[in-house]
This record gives sequence, structure tokens and C-alpha cells, in this order.
Amino acid sequence: MPGMPSYADIESAARRLAGKAVVTPLLESPRLNDILGGRLLVKPECLQLTGSFKFRGAFNRIAGGTTENGIVAYSSGNHAQGVAAAASMLGHPAVIVMPGDAPAIKMAGTRSWGADIVTYSRHDEAREEIARSVALAGGMTIVPPYDDPMIIAGQGTVGLEIADACAGRGITPDAVITCCGGGGLTAGVALAINHRFPDCAIHTAEPEGWDDTARSLVKGKRLSVTGTPASICDALLARRPGELTFDINRNLVHSGTVVTESAVIEAMVTALTSFKLVAEPGGAVALASAISGEVPVNGRTIVAIISGGNIDADVFAELVARGPS
Amino acid sequence: MPGMPSYADIESAARRLAGKAVVTPLLESPRLNDILGGRLLVKPECLQLTGSFKFRGAFNRIAGGTTENGIVAYSSGNHAQGVAAAASMLGHPAVIVMPGDAPAIKMAGTRSWGADIVTYSRHDEAREEIARSVALAGGMTIVPPYDDPMIIAGQGTVGLEIADACAGRGITPDAVITCCGGGGLTAGVALAINHRFPDCAIHTAEPEGWDDTARSLVKGKRLSVTGTPASICDALLARRPGELTFDINRNLVHSGTVVTESAVIEAMVTALTSFKLVAEPGGAVALASAISGEVPVNGRTIVAIISGGNIDADVFAELVARGPS
Repeated sequence: MPGMPSYADIESAARRLAGKAVVTPLLESPRLNDILGGRLLVKPECLQLTGSFKFRGAFNRIAGGTTENGIVAYSSGNHAQGVAAAASMLGHPAVIVMPGDAPAIKMAGTRSWGADIVTYSRHDEAREEIARSVALAGGMTIVPPYDDPMIIAGQGTVGLEIADACAGRGITPDAVITCCGGGGLTAGVALAINHRFPDCAIHTAEPEGWDDTARSLVKGKRLSVTGTPASICDALLARRPGELTFDINRNLVHSGTVVTESAVIEAMVTALTSFKLVAEPGGAVALASAISGEVPVNGRTIVAIISGGNIDADVFAELVARGPS
Repeated sequence: MPGMPSYADIESAARRLAGKAVVTPLLESPRLNDILGGRLLVKPECLQLTGSFKFRGAFNRIAGGTTENGIVAYSSGNHAQGVAAAASMLGHPAVIVMPGDAPAIKMAGTRSWGADIVTYSRHDEAREEIARSVALAGGMTIVPPYDDPMIIAGQGTVGLEIADACAGRGITPDAVITCCGGGGLTAGVALAINHRFPDCAIHTAEPEGWDDTARSLVKGKRLSVTGTPASICDALLARRPGELTFDINRNLVHSGTVVTESAVIEAMVTALTSFKLVAEPGGAVALASAISGEVPVNGRTIVAIISGGNIDADVFAELVARGPS
């Protein structure tokens, strides 16, 4: 396991990503602020190239590390697209190992960048093992989804941009909420925010049933999800925190929050009406945590990262029409 | 009728709006570019404060002009919210004359900024007359939706930002497509783009039945819509081009395009899937013009402005679920 990334590594990542990644804005809705009694800022990484923050880490890792004979990655869809895009832009072939039930938009997005896709069953097979076999056979390099210092540093540029935007507007955030699967976004953002706003709390948000990080933070050790609970948050179904990411997050994260499916759908509707953004379910959990009061906004300034927006149009329409239960 | 705004007036507007309006990004989807065979950039003004570009002109007019005893405006909803927000931020009371069938989200958005709303029937009553009566009674100042040099200059900052973003990324746009109701956005954008990229064509986009600008451009004089054709594009139902706006647009606009309802819905779905943006029907017509080939993207670089995203969640879900016919 390579060492822990530093703030300087995040600054290096930002230089690598300059002109490649979208510098996403920091948005707010005065009307929603009035309702919540505080100030809620959203960082819309759904507007990022490939529709999620994952492009940042993937590009930083592939541009800044060694890569031989191409790239292999395993992913439920957002890391897949990030890696496929970064590999394509940097001239490397890529093979992505994806669950067969990944959303069509994520499959198509990955394929559109010229990557080869190998599917597996989310319930039965170990995707890491499949990726290792593919990499070994072709002498290719695995770009892991989160447990890698270059990946974490790349995702940390989200935090750097939040800090820059806040500083530029004279805003001192009280807390930043990140969605959490394996913990790469959280670790990178926590490192950046902690350096720039040391009094700002970091909270993770996870969907019900997949609260491994919240429970691990309480116990101070990495715990796993048991079974395969149903969840609409396909982007966040990592069984347990990463090793390196948890080493960072156990020290820098204030608390882990957990949100219901109903709160996630309510947050998706709020993203639509208040911010004109399409959030996928896993991308809406941080906003859900703020709106549902898990991280109170009242009297404070809170930043919620909308981490992705890759959702099939018909599924989106159905969830919005259904509304929170 | 006051005089024609200049490029310098747009620069002044940009200075007034600094720190007030969102500098919206210029987004693209490499996958969609591949499909279209060219480069399509979108300027998402749905992310602007109040959910449409209208805030720019309203703020510029109210901050930069004379206003006595408060503001009166007439609007189908987006100008209403822009005026209400600008008036509130600048400490003026506001009365907005709106059609009784305006989308609920536009009514609620206007009210949330503290404005008083007077409703009228879209089919029977002349909103300008009602606004004039209200203004006269209270000694208030009317902020018109488009036929005003300060309004046009404010909307022109959209074009200024497009030009800045293109210049910064080494992009020379072949054409910019603007939605067109009364023509204020078009006039402002045309002035800005013509100054910065004189070879770039400007095209308007209008919904079927409300093609008064397209027909007026062909005839070289202002023609009106007859009757009240049904349209989902509630933001674009101006009967004929403005006087000042048409004086500008007849000289600077290359051609007017017209799009079907089906093309508008297809554009809304594309905004959702390719850009993760919520576009209201009237906000999607420029994108529809590009996707449907009215303004060909193939082999060229085209900028389409998504002008607004104020749509009720249930209506959005229904249109997306229905899809293009």
C-alpha cells in the first residue's frame, strides 16, 4: 500500500486536471436556504466530464502514474466512465469490469470512450479477481476505484475547488457532506478542506443498508456490509471502507450519516426543482443528509456534493414521479 | 424608446452582476459530439440564480437605472422571478403581473422573493395595460421583459461569458443558438458575440406556432402570431418581436429556426442524459434546433444556450417519460 497523499498532491492533481476537468460551480438556492433556515451550497459533480467526480481521480492516476500496456478497472459504472475517458484522452487502451446490471447509461458511456467491457454478476463474483486476471494476462495496470493515493488526490480537487470558491466569496463553511462508497472522494475532500478550513466538519452520507463507513467510524475499525441489501444507490455499493481511505477518514471525518431511500428521492426532486440538476440516487445522498436534517443546515453554512448524475431517463422520470414515500 | 445598447454597456452590466449572478460554465458531452459529428457546447442558464438568464437583465436594469417607489413587471414567470430577486436584493418592493396558468414553480419562486403577484388571463387581458395601471397607481417603475437597452445589455452578459470561455479554451464558435421570445436574450448575445467573434452566426430558435421572429426576419419587419397556438414552451409565448430588439436582431441574426414539440422533448431528454441538466421546454429550443439539425452541428462548433429550467417536477417527469413522439 503506497503512502498517504498530502495537500500538495491534491494541488499537483489540480494542475494535471487544468483544462481537462470541468471546474464545477458552487450553487445555492435562496428559496431553499429560507426553508432550511441556513445556507446550503451544492457542488454539482454531475456536471463533470463523464457525469461524475470519478474522472478526476482516474485522470490524475493515469496521467501521473506508471501505466503499461493499457488500463484495467473494476467499477459499477462511474469509475468505469472516468477511467475510460481518461485512458482515451491519454492514449491508452482500457478494459473495464462492470456488473451486468449496471445502468444502461453507464454501460453506454463507458463503451463510447472506446473501452472494452467485461461483465460479472454483482451477487456472485469477485470483481477484483476478474480484473486481476485480465491485467495479468495482458500485462496491464489496474486503476483501483478508491484505495490509491493518486485517486484520492484527484478526487480531492473537488475539495480544493470548494475551498477556493468559498474563500473567493468570503464564505466559511461549517460542514461539507460527501457521499461515501469506498471513501475516495471523502478522503480527498477531507484532506483538502481540513487544510484550508480546519474548523469545518466533514460528514459522510450513505444509503440505508450500506452504512459500512458510518459503523466503521463509530467502532474505529473497518466493518463490512453483510448480505446484499436492495438499494437504488448503485454507485455506492462498496462492502467496506478502503484501507488507505479509512486511515484518512477515521481521523478527519466528524461523523457518518445514513439516509433512507425516501430521503434520497426527495433530494433528487429538490436537485431538480431548486438547482435544475439531474442527480442519480447515489449522487443525491449528501443532499439528502442535509435536507432530512441528518446534518442540520439551520443557522449554518453547509456544502453538499452532488457526486454524479448518470441515470437512465426513464428511471429518473419514474423516481421523480413516485416522489418520496 | 431609448437608444441601442453597445458592447461597452454589456461590459458595464457584467461589472454590475459580478458576485451577484452565477458565471455559468460552458459544458459539452464528448459522446454527444461523436453522435453529432461536431462540437456542441451548451451554456446552462438554468443554473443561473432564479433558474433562468432573466435575472441578469432585471438586475442590470434595476441596479443601473432609475426606480421610484418600487418595481412593476409583467411576465409569464422567468422575468418575474428575475425581477423579484433583483428588486429584493436591491431593497425595492415589487409587483409582478403574471398569467394565472403560469407553472406553480414560477409562481412560488416569484413569491419567495417577497414580490406581490397580480394574475391575469393569458387569453383575454393585456398584461402591459394591467402593469401600467398598477405602476401609475403606486408611482412605480415598470421593468419591461425585453424592449429596454439595460435589459438587453444584462442578457448580453450571457454572450460575453460564452465569448470569454471560448477564447480561454481556444475555441472559435461557428454559430450560437438562442431561444427567442421577445428577443432580449438574442439581441444581447448577438451584440456581444458579434463584437468578439464577428464571423460567428447567430440563430434564433422558436417553438412551432410561435415563430414570429423567424417570419419577421424573413420579411424584414415585425410580424405577429395570430391566435393562441398551444405550446409547452410557456416561456416563449411573446406575440411579436420587440421594437428595439428587432432593430438589433434584423441586422445581427443570421436566421430564425423553428422546432417541433417532439424535438423540444427530445432536447429535454438529451439535456438530462448528456448534460445532467433540467431544461424547461422553452429553455430547450436552442438545443432542439442543434440536435434536430435545424442548425447543423456536423463538422462545426455550435453553442446552444439552455435558457431556463423552471418546470414543475411532475410535468418534467411526464414529458421525459413520454419522450419524443
